[in-house]
Amino acid sequence: MEKFFTPSSVAVIGASRNGDKVGHVVLKNLVTAGFKGKIFPINPHAHFILHLPCFSSVLTVPHHIDTAIIAIPSSLVLQILEECGKKGIKSIIMVTAGFSEVGNHELESKVHQILKKYNMRMVGPNCLGTLDTYSNFDNLFLPRSRLSRPKPGVISFICQSGAVGSATLDLLAKEGMKFAKFVSYGNALDVDESDMLEYLGDDPQTKIVCIYMEGIKDGKKFMRIAKKVAQKKPIIAIKGGITEAGAKATLSHTASLAGVAAIYKAAFKQCNIIYAETLEDLFNYAKILEKSPKPQGSRVQIITNGGGFGILATDALSTCNLQIPELTEQTRKMLKEKVSPEAILKNPIDLTGSVTTEQYRAALEATLKDKNSDMILLILLLQTPLISPEIIPIIKETHQKYSHKPLVIISTGGHFTEMYVRQIEGLGIPCYSYPNNAARAMKALYEYYHRR
Amino acid sequence: MEKFFTPSSVAVIGASRNGDKVGHVVLKNLVTAGFKGKIFPINPHAHFILHLPCFSSVLTVPHHIDTAIIAIPSSLVLQILEECGKKGIKSIIMVTAGFSEVGNHELESKVHQILKKYNMRMVGPNCLGTLDTYSNFDNLFLPRSRLSRPKPGVISFICQSGAVGSATLDLLAKEGMKFAKFVSYGNALDVDESDMLEYLGDDPQTKIVCIYMEGIKDGKKFMRIAKKVAQKKPIIAIKGGITEAGAKATLSHTASLAGVAAIYKAAFKQCNIIYAETLEDLFNYAKILEKSPKPQGSRVQIITNGGGFGILATDALSTCNLQIPELTEQTRKMLKEKVSPEAILKNPIDLTGSVTTEQYRAALEATLKDKNSDMILLILLLQTPLISPEIIPIIKETHQKYSHKPLVIISTGGHFTEMYVRQIEGLGIPCYSYPNNAARAMKALYEYYHRR
Repeated sequence: MEKFFTPSSVAVIGASRNGDKVGHVVLKNLVTAGFKGKIFPINPHAHFILHLPCFSSVLTVPHHIDTAIIAIPSSLVLQILEECGKKGIKSIIMVTAGFSEVGNHELESKVHQILKKYNMRMVGPNCLGTLDTYSNFDNLFLPRSRLSRPKPGVISFICQSGAVGSATLDLLAKEGMKFAKFVSYGNALDVDESDMLEYLGDDPQTKIVCIYMEGIKDGKKFMRIAKKVAQKKPIIAIKGGITEAGAKATLSHTASLAGVAAIYKAAFKQCNIIYAETLEDLFNYAKILEKSPKPQGSRVQIITNGGGFGILATDALSTCNLQIPELTEQTRKMLKEKVSPEAILKNPIDLTGSVTTEQYRAALEATLKDKNSDMILLILLLQTPLISPEIIPIIKETHQKYSHKPLVIISTGGHFTEMYVRQIEGLGIPCYSYPNNAARAMKALYEYYHRR
Repeated sequence: MEKFFTPSSVAVIGASRNGDKVGHVVLKNLVTAGFKGKIFPINPHAHFILHLPCFSSVLTVPHHIDTAIIAIPSSLVLQILEECGKKGIKSIIMVTAGFSEVGNHELESKVHQILKKYNMRMVGPNCLGTLDTYSNFDNLFLPRSRLSRPKPGVISFICQSGAVGSATLDLLAKEGMKFAKFVSYGNALDVDESDMLEYLGDDPQTKIVCIYMEGIKDGKKFMRIAKKVAQKKPIIAIKGGITEAGAKATLSHTASLAGVAAIYKAAFKQCNIIYAETLEDLFNYAKILEKSPKPQGSRVQIITNGGGFGILATDALSTCNLQIPELTEQTRKMLKEKVSPEAILKNPIDLTGSVTTEQYRAALEATLKDKNSDMILLILLLQTPLISPEIIPIIKETHQKYSHKPLVIISTGGHFTEMYVRQIEGLGIPCYSYPNNAARAMKALYEYYHRR
């Protein structure tokens, strides 16, 4: 399986001189991503593509090949697969479409026979390929000028749909989210979501697994593997086709038989897979689970410099069944001397718009120590003038000192705010723009650890 | 009331030389925003602030004053208000805090008496002030370097909380959303949400009214006015303090008695106010209502170049009780000749990742004409290489030609996508990043027009 992410040599079958062709884009991405393995473009009509010497077939390559990426018309794949088998290639990434998703089940079954015959494994067909941000093995067939690649991180993403994967990777890379491995597995003719999940469960670079799935090929296998992996690391999944109309649409997409929402939800719960209702939730959950320790319970202390945001956060946490207890009397008394007289020392603690950076330090330190809360939700509205850049080292120090208690930040604003938020996320603290997103993420964090 | 937004002369009482003080920030914002009216800083200890001559009191200003902004300690407000009354100032914006929100009801009642005595109207106390993007009357007391101001638009925002207003204005200005008027009304001692709503109902620059409220001062008055205004323009509202815990928190914020969620929701429904569950929804709804015509029904045709996004959109629309019917046979036949053979002509129409710009034109034009749909949800994933910049004029022309049918776009991605999305939004078409946000917005659009 690791040859799908870190091969030492790769053939691009269908490498093209035409910049618009998939075979060209894949080759170009491999080269410009800085992939360090050997690359063999296969094209019987070209001598060189992107300065790399071409071969007419994998059989004429004078070197062992770990992995082949196949980007040729579906009518040619059987012959090419045979050649790959004879060459001893064990890992195939089949980008080519035109299989069961358009009703061509016969072709799929023939491909399957060849895979068995040569003991090969295959990702695809009808997939976007894989990306490994550490090995720089980037065979996604979308140009880097249009689709930004994320920096190396600890979140991996198993995505049945190429479009869902590529568009969200692009958006999240812009927002600074980092990833380890990505795979779009398309029709899942051979390697399926369960195989990938099992592999990523043991992958040391992956700490969080996100999944977008339309169908599950083998329910029992998936549940067995998911239960095992979820003991080690969080799995967050979103299911496409949860409604009747949506399920109908999956048939023409990846030919998956999408089941009823309730069945999936129950199965996910049983495996301790975190169910995401939306793509936004999926990655909001990944962010908190990546950065936060286990909360001891569901009690959240809110600190704010804007009353209205404190109220919206209270509503959102309550709706998520999280608790909002009062401070201990001891903490309240101690804090009273350190904040302004207008501050309200309840839950939410409202430091008001005249809050200073030092008052934030006092409130943050006191609540992180206070035994009446298990998590802190800090609302930091940077529009108020008395918050100085000193807030960053203050958050850094306090967070490091009391790193056992999850700390989540809501900071809503434009360019000025964004500059600070990037720095705070760099400290390993999850930040959100809207109270409901933060609250839902905190609920997911709590449930992951307390359902086990 | 219009003197709160477009006065011809304004006094800043408590204008300060100290850049950190509210009275300085307000004055600086008025000056740098390019407000064209006369500005009189009131400060007995200074001769000039920001090159403007100071006066020791409003009584010594040799000119009529429409509006006074009061930013002084609460202990001084009674005397200052008397002076404003004697000067004949009719509109007061009271930024000063320290009234009923901290239990000081007596002071509020004395303020109220003075307002009556001189027939003055007041926004506040404990408020952030107002902003008019056309007159450039910007008296928000947060610096423009930290809080970006939006460009002139047609959405107005009535916001009880200053923090909610300022942070979201800042975020939305960055995202390119435009506003007409903004008011943070704080404790609502005199002018309340109903007065503002009535005023904005008649304001020709305002086409959409957004409201964040914690409490309603006079329920009957509010409902009477809201019913009237909602006939003319959409009102979208979010309520802070809908949960028990949240309601408790409103008491210490703006001293509002927040009611039960169900009561508010029922009242909103009765007035045809669109209820937003989150801040994100509030402005996602405003965007679609600003840009879209009335849909004739709830039938949505989806067009996509990514199967998975089509499925997620189908799920999201279904969850929102919108219908996803098939194309007419006539349109399907006609379209079949214009798109690639792999394209799936159901609902969603999946043009696949190999879609060209011209195929998008064909699908868009055919579905806008097709009589089996009332709205179009176009998913445009710009990572696929065959979509050229020509897509912008194509969308522009088709949208103008069939402007009677609402068109909504989902485009998810990073910097490359953002560049296009800005252009498309500039054409007056609402764009969203995530399917569920688009679907919820389409539901709000449908309900606004079909509940009336």
